[in-house]
Amino acid sequence: MSEPLGTVGIVGTGLIGASLGLAVRRRGAARRVVGVDIDPQARETARGIGAVDEASDGLDVLRTAEVVVVAVPPEAVTEVALQAAAVVPPGAVLCDVASVKAAIVRDLDRRLPARVRYIGGHPMAGSEGQGPHRADAGLLAGRPFVLTPTERTDPAAVAVMTDLAERVGMQPVLLSPEDHDVLVAQVSHLPYLAAAALVAAAGDRAVDVAGPTFEAFRRVASSPVELWVQICRANREAIADALARFRRELDRLDRALAGEESLETLLRRVRARAGGAEG
Amino acid sequence: MSEPLGTVGIVGTGLIGASLGLAVRRRGAARRVVGVDIDPQARETARGIGAVDEASDGLDVLRTAEVVVVAVPPEAVTEVALQAAAVVPPGAVLCDVASVKAAIVRDLDRRLPARVRYIGGHPMAGSEGQGPHRADAGLLAGRPFVLTPTERTDPAAVAVMTDLAERVGMQPVLLSPEDHDVLVAQVSHLPYLAAAALVAAAGDRAVDVAGPTFEAFRRVASSPVELWVQICRANREAIADALARFRRELDRLDRALAGEESLETLLRRVRARAGGAEG
Repeated sequence: MSEPLGTVGIVGTGLIGASLGLAVRRRGAARRVVGVDIDPQARETARGIGAVDEASDGLDVLRTAEVVVVAVPPEAVTEVALQAAAVVPPGAVLCDVASVKAAIVRDLDRRLPARVRYIGGHPMAGSEGQGPHRADAGLLAGRPFVLTPTERTDPAAVAVMTDLAERVGMQPVLLSPEDHDVLVAQVSHLPYLAAAALVAAAGDRAVDVAGPTFEAFRRVASSPVELWVQICRANREAIADALARFRRELDRLDRALAGEESLETLLRRVRARAGGAEG
Repeated sequence: MSEPLGTVGIVGTGLIGASLGLAVRRRGAARRVVGVDIDPQARETARGIGAVDEASDGLDVLRTAEVVVVAVPPEAVTEVALQAAAVVPPGAVLCDVASVKAAIVRDLDRRLPARVRYIGGHPMAGSEGQGPHRADAGLLAGRPFVLTPTERTDPAAVAVMTDLAERVGMQPVLLSPEDHDVLVAQVSHLPYLAAAALVAAAGDRAVDVAGPTFEAFRRVASSPVELWVQICRANREAIADALARFRRELDRLDRALAGEESLETLLRRVRARAGGAEG
């Protein structure tokens, strides 16, 4: 790995932003982390837990940042990225971490000035919590950090962000923004909706007998609604496709339950796919 | 709580049997735990990890057991319980831990001799693993231990098993066998099938971008197939009902995704039900 970065800027010191800041600082991936948040309490917490060296309510602190990570809610990303691009030094790498990529990346590719090197990103980490008080560098450890370069992405942006992802203990994965959205609908957005449907479908007394599996679904279904509504809106088509595939699999299981095909064969195939031992 | 029990017998020293044995011994809930398993390796492991004081391949060791827990696969429970009942001292409490209760409990209520006090049970714990080498008293801690007394159950059996459940750190919950099966279809059996369908529906590259939510589903879908096929067979009707309810909730989410009703309202209601903060 190369030298640590000088200054990393994080705009939006919520759960993901602050977790990234913690990981960058603890692992010495940069000499300095500056945070920007409009919420005074988020700034204070981020500073208090050591996620940033300095926190500001304005983008001015990004003036010396080599890398800026925009970690604000999906619907605010474009506006904030455009503002940050006007402040950072020429050649700075700009990355966002929104959970839906195609619309944002294609829009920013078109609108950002050539003086910044932009690449979309998505650290596949999080929890049902939100806010910097829930931040934890361990949330990121070993998880994929998807980067979504396009034909307009400067190779230096890929190199810098791949290096940063590795430095904070994550696995960089390169995907097109469109492939990202399709895959993430399958592994993240649909599972959230399935957990919500499971909780909604369970009777009132279900919680009395909940074992570890239902507890896991319940935690997922208790995630912040506002964020998920934005995600579902932004990735509606891919989610609808994933949901259609899911319902076809449920149809098959339903037929197998009724004895129309072998439940055992079906479940063994799924288990092999899930990485369970054959058996 | 009353005095600790004398001897507890555990027939089937797999994941649940051995976890129970560990918890009973560590918490001093009985003076002695004897295990029975036809698999020599399971016996050796159970003894080696301290889940039992003594392990045998025959039911004879149950001769002095005040309480016997039958922890064999669901389809073997009835046969093993009938055999154990012929060996134990008169008045012994006999409990099984199968994940589906109505058929087994009604059958055993009818067929067991009056010299034993039988009650159905289901500790709501487990993992995707199996076998005593995965046993862990912590799997049980704080989890519900459902007991399913009927009009034929001796109140002493309820008292003894309630006490034992508390002693091993679990929450006793009393339900009829039929209510148990309906609820457990919702919180355990359907969630397993939903996890299987999610894994089946995800594309081949999904695993590259899997975050913590998909990982949780993947682990559930990698559970032992043989056990789940027995469970699905035994609780087919309740599972089919739970699946129908689940699909209706998915239909609603699908309509909300398409803008036909408010996704936000729907998700906020689910979140409140899931115990998440309002917001």
